[in-house]
Amino acid sequence: MALPVSPLAPASYPELPEVAGVRFATAEAGIKYKNRTDVLLVAFEEGTSVAGVLTRSLCPSAAVDWCRERLAGGVARGLLVNSGNANAFTGEKGRAAVAKSAHFAAEALGCSTDEIFLASTGVIGEPLDAGKFEGPTRDMAGRLASAPFMEPARAIMTTDTFPKLATASVEFDGVPVVISGIAKGSGMIAPDMATMLSFIFTDAPIAAPVLQKLLGPAIDRTFNAITVDSDTSTSDTCLVFATGKAGIEPIASAEDPRAAIFAQALEDVLHELAILTVRDGEGATKLVTVSVEGAVSDQSAFRIGMAIANSPLVKTAIAGEDANWGRIVMAVGKAGEPAERDRLSIAFGDITVAENGERAPGYDEAATSAYMKGDTLEIRVRLGMGEGRAQVYTCDLTHGYITINGDYRS
Amino acid sequence: MALPVSPLAPASYPELPEVAGVRFATAEAGIKYKNRTDVLLVAFEEGTSVAGVLTRSLCPSAAVDWCRERLAGGVARGLLVNSGNANAFTGEKGRAAVAKSAHFAAEALGCSTDEIFLASTGVIGEPLDAGKFEGPTRDMAGRLASAPFMEPARAIMTTDTFPKLATASVEFDGVPVVISGIAKGSGMIAPDMATMLSFIFTDAPIAAPVLQKLLGPAIDRTFNAITVDSDTSTSDTCLVFATGKAGIEPIASAEDPRAAIFAQALEDVLHELAILTVRDGEGATKLVTVSVEGAVSDQSAFRIGMAIANSPLVKTAIAGEDANWGRIVMAVGKAGEPAERDRLSIAFGDITVAENGERAPGYDEAATSAYMKGDTLEIRVRLGMGEGRAQVYTCDLTHGYITINGDYRS
Repeated sequence: MALPVSPLAPASYPELPEVAGVRFATAEAGIKYKNRTDVLLVAFEEGTSVAGVLTRSLCPSAAVDWCRERLAGGVARGLLVNSGNANAFTGEKGRAAVAKSAHFAAEALGCSTDEIFLASTGVIGEPLDAGKFEGPTRDMAGRLASAPFMEPARAIMTTDTFPKLATASVEFDGVPVVISGIAKGSGMIAPDMATMLSFIFTDAPIAAPVLQKLLGPAIDRTFNAITVDSDTSTSDTCLVFATGKAGIEPIASAEDPRAAIFAQALEDVLHELAILTVRDGEGATKLVTVSVEGAVSDQSAFRIGMAIANSPLVKTAIAGEDANWGRIVMAVGKAGEPAERDRLSIAFGDITVAENGERAPGYDEAATSAYMKGDTLEIRVRLGMGEGRAQVYTCDLTHGYITINGDYRS
Repeated sequence: MALPVSPLAPASYPELPEVAGVRFATAEAGIKYKNRTDVLLVAFEEGTSVAGVLTRSLCPSAAVDWCRERLAGGVARGLLVNSGNANAFTGEKGRAAVAKSAHFAAEALGCSTDEIFLASTGVIGEPLDAGKFEGPTRDMAGRLASAPFMEPARAIMTTDTFPKLATASVEFDGVPVVISGIAKGSGMIAPDMATMLSFIFTDAPIAAPVLQKLLGPAIDRTFNAITVDSDTSTSDTCLVFATGKAGIEPIASAEDPRAAIFAQALEDVLHELAILTVRDGEGATKLVTVSVEGAVSDQSAFRIGMAIANSPLVKTAIAGEDANWGRIVMAVGKAGEPAERDRLSIAFGDITVAENGERAPGYDEAATSAYMKGDTLEIRVRLGMGEGRAQVYTCDLTHGYITINGDYRS
């Protein structure tokens, strides 16, 4: 199934700078796809710390289980990723496959299997033949390089219609620190074909517990604030690797003033990758930011934002370029969070369509219709209940989504 | 927008018997639709008790607010329903409109406004011109009749493609008691056009608090166990009116042995109407029962069932006649309820496709494919965690849904 490139794809891709201590290679292991790379090996120099956020699914893939156990160690020397098979719901065979995969990677890189991280994406329930990694892994280990990042970004794609890359840098005492990342995802999920995976590489010297502490809130505002179809993958994985090769004093505490600066740059990279994932949402033709203000708490605002962002009726209305604020009222009402109809205001971009529980007096239908034709929209909801706020990101629900997910038998 | 009749529509409609103490009429008030009835007046004889379940939306319609306040009284003499305008998110104007509507109905039927119940369905946010009810209500009051029920069933339709009627009867000491009901809904929701409304009429003599007590659990297993698109209407309303005209001793307590028999018949009617609503789900081509067994509790089973029934990926897979059990694993995993991959079993009908955390050894692809071509399917999930069970009902997600909800500007 060859998919057309998303109309929301970026016009160009950033060229990511090398990250000291990070080398990689890709190969064709023939897991599922033909004539394209489908496996990625990344090698980290000694002293690399790692932090990560994994799917909340209670039926996670074998690779997710593997990573969760190894994250406690906080040390990484290698990362092996494949596309085409998620190795999820594969029982004992799945556990054996990850152990075998880690063994091949550890042998090729000369480290312990507990320093190897794994991620898989693709079809669920099919046993993964880890034997297919043996030759390619040895081969990749012999030709590791530190550029170009476009190669790993492409090797991890499944139903993605474009590769996803982002980078940022900060300076501490005149020394630059690089943060570069790649991601895949085309649907917040879609365990059959897609799933969200993201790998971030930095040369910052930063202790694993600090990295983990900074990563959590950043993920909450980025990858955990996007939705394509409300479904949660069995394989969602975001891992951050810090090689420590930048010539600055180590960041050993989250209270170090540099930690906040680093965290902001990390969040910028995660934000860019998360938005690219929504832009490649299955069938997406419009990118929508849902901004909720005036909730009783930030968490309440987030839940209301997600109720709107996940509503099939809101998403189909956007696909129809219909400023259908009645459906937004519906979604606010179903969120189960404190809200009062008579205090509620709704705007599309800068155009207020409803306020104080009814249609805005000066509502301009023509201006709103023109606004809805854009491909980047904002829905703003003010609740008038408190100070809580949140932003979440979604896309429209179109015939394209049905075609990708329903018009075939796998 | 003329919609083709759902392929899941019933082959014929039941002829509902008269219910002593219930008379009704319909009229064309011209609220939105042309050349069809859009308003229903029902009159109840003195002594009629009423119970009801209303939407959980925190932004309910003005009519829902009105009913919630009057249900405490437990007494009904009239019901006025319109289609075409939901009178939701209409602020002070909406409250004035329901008061005016109740006034017209009370005047026409010669009772107090507090004995009048109201329901509205249709577009949200448009002020409802209650003045349009004045003439039709007076006219309807002059030609009340006790048959045929097809007329009220048609007058309350919006995007429904067929009318929904069901009936049951029980005998107590040789005396028959009738329970007949009508419903509309074409989507569990869809506040712009649809919404779920249901009105049940019985001649049983049953006190309002008892009726309310019996209704709640029955609704949980019927109308609250169906979903078309996970969105919750601002107007969902189910009201049960008991005229007390059947010649039996009043049922004054839920402990009366006849209460359980009556409750089962009531649930049968609600079940039939709920299933008809899913059969008329927007774009539906398949009716799906999701049965969950072995959860830690019934509530946990219900939540897992709803996670499956609401998953866009599960619903598009069914549309594609794809026995994609990986997506069911995904939905179980995201439900957030106790589950263990290695104890999970999944079947389509009688065909087990996965067990103990992996594909079933004897999985028969051809038999499963043949099964998926049917228009009435069952997904069975066994969790192996406990004794909790639940059944929920959904439909597939097709291009038809997108066309109905996204291919137009309202």
